[in-house]
Amino acid sequence: MISDSTIQAIREFTDERDWGQFHTPVNLAKSICIEAAELLECYQWTPEAPAAESEHAQEELADVLMYCIMMADALEIDMDDIIMHKLSKTKQKYPATAVRDNFEEYEARHLAARRLHRNAE
Amino acid sequence: MISDSTIQAIREFTDERDWGQFHTPVNLAKSICIEAAELLECYQWTPEAPAAESEHAQEELADVLMYCIMMADALEIDMDDIIMHKLSKTKQKYPATAVRDNFEEYEARHLAARRLHRNAE
Amino acid sequence: MISDSTIQAIREFTDERDWGQFHTPVNLAKSICIEAAELLECYQWTPEAPAAESEHAQEELADVLMYCIMMADALEIDMDDIIMHKLSKTKQKYPATAVRDNFEEYEARHLAARRLHRNAE
Amino acid sequence: MISDSTIQAIREFTDERDWGQFHTPVNLAKSICIEAAELLECYQWTPEAPAAESEHAQEELADVLMYCIMMADALEIDMDDIIMHKLSKTKQKYPATAVRDNFEEYEARHLAARRLHRNAE
Repeated sequence: MISDSTIQAIREFTDERDWGQFHTPVNLAKSICIEAAELLECYQWTPEAPAAESEHAQEELADVLMYCIMMADALEIDMDDIIMHKLSKTKQKYPATAVRDNFEEYEARHLAARRLHRNAE
Repeated sequence: MISDSTIQAIREFTDERDWGQFHTPVNLAKSICIEAAELLECYQWTPEAPAAESEHAQEELADVLMYCIMMADALEIDMDDIIMHKLSKTKQKYPATAVRDNFEEYEARHLAARRLHRNAE
Repeated sequence: MISDSTIQAIREFTDERDWGQFHTPVNLAKSICIEAAELLECYQWTPEAPAAESEHAQEELADVLMYCIMMADALEIDMDDIIMHKLSKTKQKYPATAVRDNFEEYEARHLAARRLHRNAE
Repeated sequence: MISDSTIQAIREFTDERDWGQFHTPVNLAKSICIEAAELLECYQWTPEAPAAESEHAQEELADVLMYCIMMADALEIDMDDIIMHKLSKTKQKYPATAVRDNFEEYEARHLAARRLHRNAE
């Protein structure tokens, strides 16, 4: 889990350095992207990260999460709330009984819808 | 916070669709990057997301978080643990008393170290 | 421009190191993402990159371009061809006379279409 | 190659829509990231893009390249120049004779240097 005390520790870390002034939504969105790419770098040339990289992957994931926590603060939202809200929408889009054992059809439908959309938008 | 019940809801969502087979670390690292970029897209041309986009930004942040939760499961780690571990390292790197009101010097030092590193690595 | 001699220099660089074996489309797509994020990092906290970073930004852009050239080779396509093909589609989507001085309406329509799509896909 | 006439066609496309006002380096860096992630999305769940997606991958690569061309214009640099300059530095870092058949050692050294750097920076 990500507990309230962890979130509080991040807020104190930010406040002690007076870094809240840099934490606009756009700067945090950039930062999440940058750290997500550093996480991906652990798997750049091989599907499996080299063993020596496993601690590194954990640290990069932690960086992504820290910026997400700061972003939730900047947007004044609760992470549990937005996740459960989105999960509920995603469940409707991908009903379990229909999806199960039928990933390819769903993926193809998803990609076809996206292509259609790109041409139409 | 992100509670254990939210994490459990995501695990059930995955299991009901038999999607765990796709949740390798590399696939999840790609997915975090993809969703992070969709979040950034809300701020592509303006520092402020248009009002109509604020719900959209919340949903994209939720997507990033959901894939991070799945990644933590794939790496068999606890999110609180890795965040607190990384926060402790970051605190040593950026001592509050030294950093405060001195962001530019720290940023310049950080960037200089990175340049040096890139040439040397 | 990006001349044929530059493309040839990159192919020779790759061949001399026997790195073609790593240049699958998925690995190159990851690499383009990783380098794009390093370019973004030059602008992480300020809209303007610090002066000392301008050479750095050029190098990161060069990295993105080098991986794009390798990707075009992996997909066996010509960069001029795909750019002109896509440009022609984009021109139809955003007619100059309609778009000019009306960016906001087009952006709103684009975002509305995307939201609609996300719910429907 | 990417010819001068292709670059000129992109400049005209931009000018006809008066979109140069949005093409600041930071906005273009964001845009390159966003399109790079859309390219990666073609390979999100499988190392090989589904056949129906191959045209899609070409279009996403074209989008990345178009924003790179606009970025080169915004930074007032020539793409051939920065690529050849960076290639020359990369050749020194990875000498062909030493690298060949020895990728793992080089990759390990690269990752170790990066870890060291992250702790020290």
